Amino acid sequence: MFKAIVSADTLKETLDSVSVLVDECKIHLDEDGLSIRAVDPANVGMVDLDLAAAAFESYEADGGLIGVNLSRLEDIAGMADAGQLVQLELDEETRKLHIQIDGLEYTLALIDPDSIRQEPDIPDLDLPAHVVIEGRDIDRAVTAADMVSDHIALGVDAADELFYVDAEGDTDDVHLELTRDQLIDLESGAAHSLFSLDYLKDMNKAIPKDAEVELELGDEYPVKMHFDIAEAQGQVTYMLAPRIQSD
Amino acid sequence: MFKAIVSADTLKETLDSVSVLVDECKIHLDEDGLSIRAVDPANVGMVDLDLAAAAFESYEADGGLIGVNLSRLEDIAGMADAGQLVQLELDEETRKLHIQIDGLEYTLALIDPDSIRQEPDIPDLDLPAHVVIEGRDIDRAVTAADMVSDHIALGVDAADELFYVDAEGDTDDVHLELTRDQLIDLESGAAHSLFSLDYLKDMNKAIPKDAEVELELGDEYPVKMHFDIAEAQGQVTYMLAPRIQSD
Amino acid sequence: MFKAIVSADTLKETLDSVSVLVDECKIHLDEDGLSIRAVDPANVGMVDLDLAAAAFESYEADGGLIGVNLSRLEDIAGMADAGQLVQLELDEETRKLHIQIDGLEYTLALIDPDSIRQEPDIPDLDLPAHVVIEGRDIDRAVTAADMVSDHIALGVDAADELFYVDAEGDTDDVHLELTRDQLIDLESGAAHSLFSLDYLKDMNKAIPKDAEVELELGDEYPVKMHFDIAEAQGQVTYMLAPRIQSD
Repeated sequence: MFKAIVSADTLKETLDSVSVLVDECKIHLDEDGLSIRAVDPANVGMVDLDLAAAAFESYEADGGLIGVNLSRLEDIAGMADAGQLVQLELDEETRKLHIQIDGLEYTLALIDPDSIRQEPDIPDLDLPAHVVIEGRDIDRAVTAADMVSDHIALGVDAADELFYVDAEGDTDDVHLELTRDQLIDLESGAAHSLFSLDYLKDMNKAIPKDAEVELELGDEYPVKMHFDIAEAQGQVTYMLAPRIQSD
Repeated sequence: MFKAIVSADTLKETLDSVSVLVDECKIHLDEDGLSIRAVDPANVGMVDLDLAAAAFESYEADGGLIGVNLSRLEDIAGMADAGQLVQLELDEETRKLHIQIDGLEYTLALIDPDSIRQEPDIPDLDLPAHVVIEGRDIDRAVTAADMVSDHIALGVDAADELFYVDAEGDTDDVHLELTRDQLIDLESGAAHSLFSLDYLKDMNKAIPKDAEVELELGDEYPVKMHFDIAEAQGQVTYMLAPRIQSD
Repeated sequence: MFKAIVSADTLKETLDSVSVLVDECKIHLDEDGLSIRAVDPANVGMVDLDLAAAAFESYEADGGLIGVNLSRLEDIAGMADAGQLVQLELDEETRKLHIQIDGLEYTLALIDPDSIRQEPDIPDLDLPAHVVIEGRDIDRAVTAADMVSDHIALGVDAADELFYVDAEGDTDDVHLELTRDQLIDLESGAAHSLFSLDYLKDMNKAIPKDAEVELELGDEYPVKMHFDIAEAQGQVTYMLAPRIQSD
């Protein structure tokens, strides 16, 4: 059983956070909210998303699992205006999702969850450095790095207590340094890892510019990025595996 | 003889209503206004447009007939700002149309009307159901239907007194129901016909979102759509032939 | 030595004025400001730009010469918001330009000036007709002419004291006449020359719509166009060679 009403904005934000990594996903419809975990085909980027029942205008579920085509669902949500409500109701028998927007009913065929790539186990990592940064600073760094390279280094200089971003191209370089004062928060610790810019660009698309993003970083370790959506009723975690350093 | 001054907005609205169906058309320049009738090359969609002399800032004509390239004329009108006036004057001898926008003069070669597809006779049909609906509801229905199918059913349920739109795709369906209360007006009568979505999408482009659109519908009959342009000084009628129902 | 701080707006305006003609250019970094002269590969369009030190928030230079990739530099400037400041500093040893925008540092490899096409000598021409016109009128004329032809005539009718633009296509023509009253200024003299529209379209892109543009015109002579940028702290001159008249 699943029946919910949610603002189009919240629905879009939720779907966008996942669709930057995968085309299809499983959605767990639990009593206290929905959750999604997914990993991209190359096993490099992962997403873990929780959206509490409180993010919805109304929400009823009892633990079901559905498989959805994300871009299709995004197109449907895209028909609603920003403030409009979207009504979702699962038909258990036909395995179709009925989506209503102001009188317009869309019947979406679901995907067999077993046919969707297995959900990842997102490992607990005890990473030494924590950085809290505005979404717009991630955007600036990623945009600039993209002009010179296809990979990007993220690191923390424990001695100078600063977070840095480095991208080295064939001729040009990009460098961004943010000291403790310029960050929302910094828990210093030695960290330096290289990442594929393609993945970070995709993740960046879904990070609100005004979000506070917590980065967990280590030395040649994955980066974890945590941020809230849906007025803090939703939490998204991205994890991105590092590339091998080339020296 | 033809000499007229018209706001760029009114000119664009007029041309757009016709250009969604055909590239070239004949324009009748009568004393009391201009009129256009045209049918698309496949003989499926027709347009009948009247624009009264009162829609113009000034208007003088005596029954001429000209042939125009619509996209060319739209490009010229597009050079004017929204509120700007466009001055039109026919040179009978050279068969050219002089178009002036704030000192800029464009001389447009006309097309021999005999070389343009014959104007259609738009039949008088005594269709049983009449629905008056907002342009934006047509837009929503057409946009949603386009996500699942290439045809769309329009109908009236005489028993329940409601207008409905149906599109059935291979896996997904779209359905919109509007009761008498949700419509501007409803004259109930049994009606259900299937239409090509391509044509309806083109016509939808030219229907103002805030227009009151009167639909005339029957059972496996063409649909007629009437709406006003140019602050009710212009009337447009589209007629679209039905597709054969496939069961 | 070169070290300067400039608003992103001024930097973009400056680069755009030159990049419409060439991809790379030499920049003279003189004590009292910077200057650029460049000619397109076909030797048809030239630009001469001066930007005074007063156009900068701060400016220090001692006569150096650098070679830059304009589109790369435009991309970097494009990362700054309109009002933001861009800090430029030349590293003489590495021949790299350090560009800082709010903590983000971009290191741009410069191009050997000797590898860039030689700067043109822009001839002093004593042209008989001078016209001062708004940028938006150039834009209208060029846009309209582009609908019918790939060349455009600019001229002054000394008898009627008016400036005109003419474009003749295979079937359609465009004509714009501006009398002394409709111009900002007119110094009458016989002038009529034909120009390639492609070049004029490129130059038009960089001319602010609200700029006062001084045109110097002659009979089958180049046209010179002068306008200010950076709140009159910068001056741009374009010179465009005429095409041979075809009669």
